[in-house]
Amino acid sequence: MTAPLGNSRDLALQERARHVIPNGMWGHMATRSIAPGYPQFFSRASGCRVWDADGNEYIDFMCAWGPNVLGYHHTAVEAAALSQLQVVDSGNGPTEMVVELAELLTSTLDHADWCLFEKNGTDATTACVTIARSATGKRKVIMAKGAYHGAVPWCSPSVIGVTAEDRAHLISFDWGDLVSLEAAVAQAGDDLAAIILTAFRHDVGRDQELPTAEFLRAARAHCDRAGAMLICDDVRAGFRLDVRGSWARYGVKPDLAAYSKAIANGWPLAAIAGANHARAGAEKIFTTGSFWYGAAAMAAAVATVRILRDTDALAHTEAMGKRFRQGLDQAATHHGYRLRQTGPVQMPMVLVDGDQDLRIGNALCAAALRHGIFLHPKHNMFLCAAHTAADIDRAVEGVDRAFADIAAAGVVPA
Amino acid sequence: MTAPLGNSRDLALQERARHVIPNGMWGHMATRSIAPGYPQFFSRASGCRVWDADGNEYIDFMCAWGPNVLGYHHTAVEAAALSQLQVVDSGNGPTEMVVELAELLTSTLDHADWCLFEKNGTDATTACVTIARSATGKRKVIMAKGAYHGAVPWCSPSVIGVTAEDRAHLISFDWGDLVSLEAAVAQAGDDLAAIILTAFRHDVGRDQELPTAEFLRAARAHCDRAGAMLICDDVRAGFRLDVRGSWARYGVKPDLAAYSKAIANGWPLAAIAGANHARAGAEKIFTTGSFWYGAAAMAAAVATVRILRDTDALAHTEAMGKRFRQGLDQAATHHGYRLRQTGPVQMPMVLVDGDQDLRIGNALCAAALRHGIFLHPKHNMFLCAAHTAADIDRAVEGVDRAFADIAAAGVVPA
Repeated sequence: MTAPLGNSRDLALQERARHVIPNGMWGHMATRSIAPGYPQFFSRASGCRVWDADGNEYIDFMCAWGPNVLGYHHTAVEAAALSQLQVVDSGNGPTEMVVELAELLTSTLDHADWCLFEKNGTDATTACVTIARSATGKRKVIMAKGAYHGAVPWCSPSVIGVTAEDRAHLISFDWGDLVSLEAAVAQAGDDLAAIILTAFRHDVGRDQELPTAEFLRAARAHCDRAGAMLICDDVRAGFRLDVRGSWARYGVKPDLAAYSKAIANGWPLAAIAGANHARAGAEKIFTTGSFWYGAAAMAAAVATVRILRDTDALAHTEAMGKRFRQGLDQAATHHGYRLRQTGPVQMPMVLVDGDQDLRIGNALCAAALRHGIFLHPKHNMFLCAAHTAADIDRAVEGVDRAFADIAAAGVVPA
Repeated sequence: MTAPLGNSRDLALQERARHVIPNGMWGHMATRSIAPGYPQFFSRASGCRVWDADGNEYIDFMCAWGPNVLGYHHTAVEAAALSQLQVVDSGNGPTEMVVELAELLTSTLDHADWCLFEKNGTDATTACVTIARSATGKRKVIMAKGAYHGAVPWCSPSVIGVTAEDRAHLISFDWGDLVSLEAAVAQAGDDLAAIILTAFRHDVGRDQELPTAEFLRAARAHCDRAGAMLICDDVRAGFRLDVRGSWARYGVKPDLAAYSKAIANGWPLAAIAGANHARAGAEKIFTTGSFWYGAAAMAAAVATVRILRDTDALAHTEAMGKRFRQGLDQAATHHGYRLRQTGPVQMPMVLVDGDQDLRIGNALCAAALRHGIFLHPKHNMFLCAAHTAADIDRAVEGVDRAFADIAAAGVVPA
């Protein structure tokens, strides 16, 4: 095994945090929700690299859990945002940047006639549901079991602090299962407002699944028959797989879609993009937030989306994802492990076969950290356009060493 | 009347926006929700001044609807945020800035032992309610009729797209009325999770009311008896009236409080600050967001709160508010109008007596815009530390001219 990384500063910060932050940290970035061995605090990010609070450097495969799509501190994006920041960010109203961004998105996404902007992915999914109810006058919302659509009572993965009524009109079905979907639609009867689906199945801790065209077309047809809205929750995948929207390649158009994460390469922004027949529903609801008109994040989004549209950034990212997947498979095989790598290569889920309790995955990721590679044992990971072939090869080499470490320590399938 | 301001650029942007944004704009910053005559788009902000898309300059009394508390582009705040931005904003986890900010808030606020951070005021109020339910195992939430706590289904001022179940456990009462509050508590029975109150009564379109100590103490006592949580929604008033929290002067401590708007002088941030006995409730719930760990807004908040704590910024703002209130009264009287000016002088609500339909207020504000003064006819306004006595005097002079304009046009009480 490699010597442990220095982590005295991280531990000192964790100790201070324990006093003034519940559990020492909340939400998905709390290390206790990841696995043992992870640094809690970071000090720097650049390109495809992050540095923890103790200055340890990592080749990064989480990309801020999605927002980093072009590389941290992308020159053109930062220049656009900082230039806007110097004149006005939060003011008494929006700037022309909101119009530029809405025009750019409606001309780039294959399904969108209008947009509005928010701060959180949850803002966007929640307002999509509200708009669907406003547009249809109906209440029931069908979603897949285990799908993550945000962290507020109607959709939170935790039911603590949530009332039964918060989820009174939700109907669940099994992702991808047409029979199960049909049963859910039947259960909704004449009260179906929406079917909401993530762009693909990216539930935590299990193999990912891309949708089939047949599945998406069936969801589309159910909505058309019922006069309901098909919502694509593209918060996690949007602007990373396809700048036209993640379902463009299937030829299936959602009525409403939620975007966030990668849309502004790390600047806080979310968007709803809708079709014309959902516009009246959107015009009737009230949705707003103090910082939703901030122009700096919109300037960052305009720059980000233009680069994604006009360059080979996403094709490059996909190529790097393939290289990484192949390299990981070879490294695993080399040390007698088998991986299950699922989902888009740009958003890889990497699980070790025969590792039900994540004992191997956790050990592998902890070892990889010591070799300067930042992975995640059970959440999908993210690649960005700043990953080069040399970065990928260096990362594969680090993971190869991590496999060697855990094999030497006897961490193998039971 | 003064010649109308140039607004060709604003109108051109509005026309473009109409195609790609529902209603041309959403939420509280849509001009149609304010009054006729307002520019929709802005191009610049500095100190206590804003410039619309056509370059017209205004002395600003909306302060970005609250976020601007020290002046737009405050040097020290921007330096702190930009310095952080250059190393890392959104990364794979928080930076030490989250600990610094939580330590600063818990030592500055009079009621807080811990904090966690979000992006929207609505994030904070929603999570406060969830934490209260988690902490108490109960469901009912008491809130004042007409109070604004955010724009999601459980609390939105609009019920379009909202289901009855979204509000199943809300009980309303009349702000400040102890009998009404007691009846609400009785109605909750043994199922009371929380009483949520804005820092003072600042409902749109009506006279504001400061709480009495008796009212706050009664709410506190009801919560203590019922084992419920008292939540102060300090999103709008927090860090503008009193850096210790808006109820510190009353000696009444909430169990949970929601902050946003002014906390980072315009950078997008919200916070929950809680007492130790609410900590276990907070530790059990799941609340998170992609950008909630962003360090730049936290650096801005650390700088903002330190300045508010260590300088006379808030005392100065209050003095300017008094000067403005006196000046407006004199200007109104001078032209035969009577004003109702209510609430804290730093967050003035200015209504014209005998103006039920806001005809006079709307005309006054439209005329004030033409004299370079940005007011609001029915929402509370905001002063900031960048307002100088000369700015206030210039603004009062502009409002005096606006009164002259509307008097000359015969816009007087019926």
